[in-house]
Amino acid sequence: MKIALLGGTGDLGKGLALRLAKLGYEVLVGSRSDEKGKKLASEYSQIAGVEIKGFDNATASELCDIAILTIPWEYAFDTAAQLKEKLKGKIVVSPLVPMKKEKGYFDYVRLPEGSAAEKVASILESKVVSTFHSVPAERFADLNQKVDWDLPMCGDDKEAKETIAEIARKMGFRPLDAGPLKVSSLLESLTPLIINIAVKNKMHDLTIKFI
Amino acid sequence: MKIALLGGTGDLGKGLALRLAKLGYEVLVGSRSDEKGKKLASEYSQIAGVEIKGFDNATASELCDIAILTIPWEYAFDTAAQLKEKLKGKIVVSPLVPMKKEKGYFDYVRLPEGSAAEKVASILESKVVSTFHSVPAERFADLNQKVDWDLPMCGDDKEAKETIAEIARKMGFRPLDAGPLKVSSLLESLTPLIINIAVKNKMHDLTIKFI
Repeated sequence: MKIALLGGTGDLGKGLALRLAKLGYEVLVGSRSDEKGKKLASEYSQIAGVEIKGFDNATASELCDIAILTIPWEYAFDTAAQLKEKLKGKIVVSPLVPMKKEKGYFDYVRLPEGSAAEKVASILESKVVSTFHSVPAERFADLNQKVDWDLPMCGDDKEAKETIAEIARKMGFRPLDAGPLKVSSLLESLTPLIINIAVKNKMHDLTIKFI
Repeated sequence: MKIALLGGTGDLGKGLALRLAKLGYEVLVGSRSDEKGKKLASEYSQIAGVEIKGFDNATASELCDIAILTIPWEYAFDTAAQLKEKLKGKIVVSPLVPMKKEKGYFDYVRLPEGSAAEKVASILESKVVSTFHSVPAERFADLNQKVDWDLPMCGDDKEAKETIAEIARKMGFRPLDAGPLKVSSLLESLTPLIINIAVKNKMHDLTIKFI
């Protein structure tokens, strides 16, 4: 199965690239330019010890079965719009968290569409699954770190949600169905909450567990 | 220290009454009528094996040092408005979660004030602390259940927040500062998320842990 990481930067992109490649998935790192994509892919390949390919975002989108939007939320919607044709009918994963820094805390940015995932779904003709927001990215990018975290996910396409759940399960996560895309904002807004708690209580790179 | 549970019904009210009374706090159960308050208090006294007093909400508000709004959110704002004078300058705790049931899931109701706690703060001249939303109420009301859960809290008054944190700590919680009231919606919206996950994954009376 070919999984494209569009953007592919940051600790979430890195963690996904390394862990998915090591599990045997064909990982396609996408970037604004083919050159950048190949550079990033080569860096990740060296760490993972497995081949990871790099492309521009359009090629990665064309070749993939599943695309994950590992790209800052401010740019994600424009990028999605440009890739609409190539992502048609495919599974697209949104880990996007619209967020802004205020004085001393982070707040969730409520989009007119309700959430980032719903906005992505309104732009694309793809099966959108909303997840990976609550992953502690720095720990996730460290292959020595065991991934035994909970992973809530929203989505309207049952089969797409189960496909992503299965991939997550292989990485070590406990996937948890959190309902339809309509409630994706409940999930997305976990991230500023977690960051605020980490900062205020001098904790670091937190995630949550449902007990 | 005198702690009023305004409304005082439901598993959260019950759990707080029992556990606070057993810790030596003077618990005042408030209700719409003095008679109802006394009836509820007597029930709780029998379970706790400690005296718990009952009053109407106005008297409980007058006598208390701290008031907790253990009352359905739809009625809480009117009740708060009626008690404004008696609660002036006191600590008022909002565990309120504005929530509505849709077809197959719960959603958070965004109030024009931003959150239930901010609305309470706009009505009262009190020190509002927003917490206890994520308590698994049924388990909490069972005195055999160990309370070793995380308790995120928002508030603008540092001292009031620390007072409530200390009380929570005595019950077994790990209190976590989650920032100012401005981000209380991040906290309040945890509850529909937790309920959706519990329902969809056949789990029960969940809470969260920050790890």
